[in-house]
Amino acid sequence: MTTDRRLIAGMVGGGPGAMIGTAHRHAMWLDNQYVLAAGVFSRDQHTSRQFADSLGVDRVYTDYRQMAEQEHGLDVVAVVTPNDSHFEIAKAFLEKGVAVVCEKPLTNDSASAAELVAIAEANGTILAVPHIYSAYAMVRHAARMVRDGELGRVRFVAAEHASGWASAPVDQWRMDPDKGGVATAVADVGTHAYHLLRYITGLEATRISAELSTLVAGRPVFDNATVRLTLSNGAPATLWATMAATGQEHGLRIRVFGDDASLEWHHEDPQHLTVRHPDGGATILAHGMDTLSDDAARLTRVGMGHPEGFLEAFANFYSDLAELLRAPQQKRELTIPTGVDGLIGIQFVEATVASHADDAGWVALP
Amino acid sequence: MTTDRRLIAGMVGGGPGAMIGTAHRHAMWLDNQYVLAAGVFSRDQHTSRQFADSLGVDRVYTDYRQMAEQEHGLDVVAVVTPNDSHFEIAKAFLEKGVAVVCEKPLTNDSASAAELVAIAEANGTILAVPHIYSAYAMVRHAARMVRDGELGRVRFVAAEHASGWASAPVDQWRMDPDKGGVATAVADVGTHAYHLLRYITGLEATRISAELSTLVAGRPVFDNATVRLTLSNGAPATLWATMAATGQEHGLRIRVFGDDASLEWHHEDPQHLTVRHPDGGATILAHGMDTLSDDAARLTRVGMGHPEGFLEAFANFYSDLAELLRAPQQKRELTIPTGVDGLIGIQFVEATVASHADDAGWVALP
Amino acid sequence: MTTDRRLIAGMVGGGPGAMIGTAHRHAMWLDNQYVLAAGVFSRDQHTSRQFADSLGVDRVYTDYRQMAEQEHGLDVVAVVTPNDSHFEIAKAFLEKGVAVVCEKPLTNDSASAAELVAIAEANGTILAVPHIYSAYAMVRHAARMVRDGELGRVRFVAAEHASGWASAPVDQWRMDPDKGGVATAVADVGTHAYHLLRYITGLEATRISAELSTLVAGRPVFDNATVRLTLSNGAPATLWATMAATGQEHGLRIRVFGDDASLEWHHEDPQHLTVRHPDGGATILAHGMDTLSDDAARLTRVGMGHPEGFLEAFANFYSDLAELLRAPQQKRELTIPTGVDGLIGIQFVEATVASHADDAGWVALP
Amino acid sequence: MTTDRRLIAGMVGGGPGAMIGTAHRHAMWLDNQYVLAAGVFSRDQHTSRQFADSLGVDRVYTDYRQMAEQEHGLDVVAVVTPNDSHFEIAKAFLEKGVAVVCEKPLTNDSASAAELVAIAEANGTILAVPHIYSAYAMVRHAARMVRDGELGRVRFVAAEHASGWASAPVDQWRMDPDKGGVATAVADVGTHAYHLLRYITGLEATRISAELSTLVAGRPVFDNATVRLTLSNGAPATLWATMAATGQEHGLRIRVFGDDASLEWHHEDPQHLTVRHPDGGATILAHGMDTLSDDAARLTRVGMGHPEGFLEAFANFYSDLAELLRAPQQKRELTIPTGVDGLIGIQFVEATVASHADDAGWVALP
Repeated sequence: MTTDRRLIAGMVGGGPGAMIGTAHRHAMWLDNQYVLAAGVFSRDQHTSRQFADSLGVDRVYTDYRQMAEQEHGLDVVAVVTPNDSHFEIAKAFLEKGVAVVCEKPLTNDSASAAELVAIAEANGTILAVPHIYSAYAMVRHAARMVRDGELGRVRFVAAEHASGWASAPVDQWRMDPDKGGVATAVADVGTHAYHLLRYITGLEATRISAELSTLVAGRPVFDNATVRLTLSNGAPATLWATMAATGQEHGLRIRVFGDDASLEWHHEDPQHLTVRHPDGGATILAHGMDTLSDDAARLTRVGMGHPEGFLEAFANFYSDLAELLRAPQQKRELTIPTGVDGLIGIQFVEATVASHADDAGWVALP
Repeated sequence: MTTDRRLIAGMVGGGPGAMIGTAHRHAMWLDNQYVLAAGVFSRDQHTSRQFADSLGVDRVYTDYRQMAEQEHGLDVVAVVTPNDSHFEIAKAFLEKGVAVVCEKPLTNDSASAAELVAIAEANGTILAVPHIYSAYAMVRHAARMVRDGELGRVRFVAAEHASGWASAPVDQWRMDPDKGGVATAVADVGTHAYHLLRYITGLEATRISAELSTLVAGRPVFDNATVRLTLSNGAPATLWATMAATGQEHGLRIRVFGDDASLEWHHEDPQHLTVRHPDGGATILAHGMDTLSDDAARLTRVGMGHPEGFLEAFANFYSDLAELLRAPQQKRELTIPTGVDGLIGIQFVEATVASHADDAGWVALP
Repeated sequence: MTTDRRLIAGMVGGGPGAMIGTAHRHAMWLDNQYVLAAGVFSRDQHTSRQFADSLGVDRVYTDYRQMAEQEHGLDVVAVVTPNDSHFEIAKAFLEKGVAVVCEKPLTNDSASAAELVAIAEANGTILAVPHIYSAYAMVRHAARMVRDGELGRVRFVAAEHASGWASAPVDQWRMDPDKGGVATAVADVGTHAYHLLRYITGLEATRISAELSTLVAGRPVFDNATVRLTLSNGAPATLWATMAATGQEHGLRIRVFGDDASLEWHHEDPQHLTVRHPDGGATILAHGMDTLSDDAARLTRVGMGHPEGFLEAFANFYSDLAELLRAPQQKRELTIPTGVDGLIGIQFVEATVASHADDAGWVALP
Repeated sequence: MTTDRRLIAGMVGGGPGAMIGTAHRHAMWLDNQYVLAAGVFSRDQHTSRQFADSLGVDRVYTDYRQMAEQEHGLDVVAVVTPNDSHFEIAKAFLEKGVAVVCEKPLTNDSASAAELVAIAEANGTILAVPHIYSAYAMVRHAARMVRDGELGRVRFVAAEHASGWASAPVDQWRMDPDKGGVATAVADVGTHAYHLLRYITGLEATRISAELSTLVAGRPVFDNATVRLTLSNGAPATLWATMAATGQEHGLRIRVFGDDASLEWHHEDPQHLTVRHPDGGATILAHGMDTLSDDAARLTRVGMGHPEGFLEAFANFYSDLAELLRAPQQKRELTIPTGVDGLIGIQFVEATVASHADDAGWVALP
């Protein structure tokens, strides 16, 4: 993972205490392919400057517009602000031809998300959405196995992202319906499970039925969602999303059942992929094995038995992005999610709200 | 587990090669509380006689009516014939005041099941239904924990019985809609998951929504079911039942989420119960620990670290039944399922079929 | 597992509260191949009688000599008394041509154990020693894999039986050097690990080095032993035995490393066997799979996904014994351990004591 | 983990294809606390220059002496060359007052290692040795638990680093007795297990007994070692080291048994720490829990449920080093290993060779 030259990156948001901004920075730094050179870390000039200094970031702004105007030569900007500002900020940079990594959900509604996708395309640049879990080596291997037919026809999928991070009342913007959306469980974690399902199977959902509910009494948003899906090959699937699953650590887990084999991956142990066979035996594949697909092998930095976790997956995302920025026309079959995936995620959130309003009736996806 | 006198048992069905009859017999024998003294093992007299001899069964019949008439002093009869004969056979013995252990589903429809329940009651005897999983020590402990409020209010339940035993085409009566029912996945395994959910939580379902599907192409029954439930305390729940989950061994698994803790049990490792806490830590409880509830402790035969499996759970069922037969008025809070549970199971199957017919719309349970 | 006729069994020891006697009885009953017809359960006549009644045992004695003299037609006697009485009791029955199942350690020293072996042989009967763990289906499969060369040459073995049952002070005969022996950890659990190692690998130890120690302060016996072994093919091995491993449930675990693959089995999950391959991938084999060896398959009663535990393994031991009693000349390659195995176990205990006395120097095994 | 200023780092060794150099660089970069500014990556000037460019390293040398002389303002140099050159290179920088991170084994013998330790001390600088496993959050928490008495007195420790990376013949310097040492299993992996044992328990070994062996036929070094240890509190311990454990991924695992509880950690799942209690119950602690000790909590970058692996642990090592470089007098109780630990590791290797020469007799440690 060496580079011709390091790419010049900027960041909007991600000030002191913001976990996701921290993750983006570690991911940029890990492989030394990016220089984080410019940023807006706070609306307060002093705070922003001080934080930038602590990070070794040279150029600091207090306003993204100013940054978009004055910066020249930026390769990519990471947008890690609250959801409601994504659109304006991403637009400002995309229109200048700067690639954007925009946290999900891309925007608050599918119309504006579609607009962002169009802007990126019109300006010939990349809009990337960090569904990081698809950048784990063993997820890539899973996707490769499905693509190569090792599971046979996919007959059923059970996906869940059932976290316990908000199993007690929390004071956080995701619990404010105006900021996190009413279907916050779907927007926050459900879209990750949904993207993972799409990424591994290569299938889309054609219709869904969703029941939204509130597990923590008094919470003004839906912190739980159970979703049925019909996939594009006709197979049924289920998806469960919540942040109120008391005691669960992270809870992203997927099982894909094919006619010939099934596979299971979960984020608590991202280094392994379990493949189950019709006779009831199972094979455990491990990150770093010589015999994995190239899609997985190329994402291993240190060697078998040396766990690589969330930040390495995040760095894989940035590494693939770097490849795309340098040679956009040589896009791999299995690479990072883009604005279209972000848009599909928002359409999914909207469909769950529509279904719920119809007493969990079926809703077609666009 | 000593006895005053051994109980006299009979069996109808369970001839050579029938797995479930075998399990009943091992369960009766394990604790030496039952003498299997009479039976109908085949319609062919010679076969029945020969098989009875091999089992050490003294009195053998070729017809259940004959057996019901001629046997005196039977304490209990196990009915392990195909589903469509359950009603007549169970009726014959219940009407004579003999307790009946009848395999589930009790009958093919809820009306006849309700009739059996009424007959048992009218004759002052016991109709027991072997949802064996509720007789595992750690399931009993789980039920005790919920009863004692250790989880707080139950907020969500995820139950599944997703087996791979029929992930390829099989020639078996459960795949014949006339014998196993069209919703065979629900009748065969779904009712186990449903009973387990009810048993551990002490809650009933008030309404359900079900999507039935066929995972193995060409199969004339539904071998897969995804069910949403609303529980009697208002909490949502999901249940997934299939016998076509490629590669899964047995696949009965339940997670119960409360406000204060959650718990997980699965049948691949029945000796342990995982309790998860709001801080993300987990406690693993093991069969045989001194600190378990009496409900669990009394079901341990050998001691911690000595796994007890399906047959011991089955023997627990028969042991609890022996207790009930000897002192029916001293019924424990947590004991074996009876005809009412069998009836509720059939109502559940019928509700899934009704919901499916309505495009997975909600259906109220009786 | 049907029978021509049920075998007539007796028991000496195993009165109220004795765990191991309980296990033997459940094991005899489970498959209904044995009738427990006679016994000495206490030196007190009333207690013995009462307990026998509770078990459905017809003939009861207060003295083993009386029983040996008066009983005719006994097929087998289980000797489950304290160690120091094994010799006399076993001898009494063996000399009458009655097969004996004698708990380990067979006797308190190898000389008397060898004498018992000789007596059994001279009288043309069977002396069996219940190292039950070798009767698990997956242990049998492991032994078969090694025999069939699937691991290649065995290059290293790591065996341990590290239980926590006596991690705190306990008042029990095994902590009395006169009753349990000074090397109680080796005698109690170490011999199980040692037998398992021999059973799976088919190798013997030619020399050992042992360090004995006392983990619970003030205990007058060695409750911990670490042993190095040189196996008969020259491969090194280790064995760790203790009953003071705080918090461990049962702790019997073995890993066998071959040139071509390795395998791991542990008693907390006896249903599975892990096979590891040179590329770092692993295969999990499950009890009940169609594709297992006959040695494993024939020990499955109910079917894949239905756990069978310690009592089923114990019943496998009695089932194999029944086979041997009925057709001694048709002995299987992989069957139950006999007096010779019991003798080898005692030689092992003695060797650990000798090595310890020599500051853990090497000691040759007979 | 922000910085006052980034520290200036150099590297000697770690050219194209060298795994350990790669790990050091990712670790330096991950938190952006270091600028890798100078290096010797090859004896060939062109190769060294080209590789440095690919890494964004400004100043490149072809000889470490030249680098030591010409570089001014270096805070630390990572020495990742083959073992036999460690001494000269580390010495050159330490004598100039530059801190050194030197791969283990520090040198080829304890005398020269002791000399390096003395040189570092005389020059008032830091010599750090990357036993990275001690920088995992859950290992730190384990060490804290022992320090705080949560286990009571440590009564036994079982440590192993049993990897399968060289279970088949490999052509590598570690299999050359002149380069990797004859006890290559101890030097390569055994020292990691030994350091982990010392780090978690806070105990030293006073004497050891070791059996060295060769598992892969024809290998001119010992690729397997079983070690007995007597710890400084009198407790016995075992350590097993090999790189020929067919099929094992990484295989670093430690269990520490105390009078009141035991704990287990293994590198295949570094995010969790299992604590076992005298009643047989277990508690699973997870990286990121709010309730962990500060020693663990401060090493979490992203949050519970987001696995952090080997590179994050390596970055923790570099982060602690940065703290020490900035404020050496404020050394934490639980921080990174230094030259003394490296020296103790070499003494351990030497003791295993001495013991082996004496037929595994006991050897006192310095």
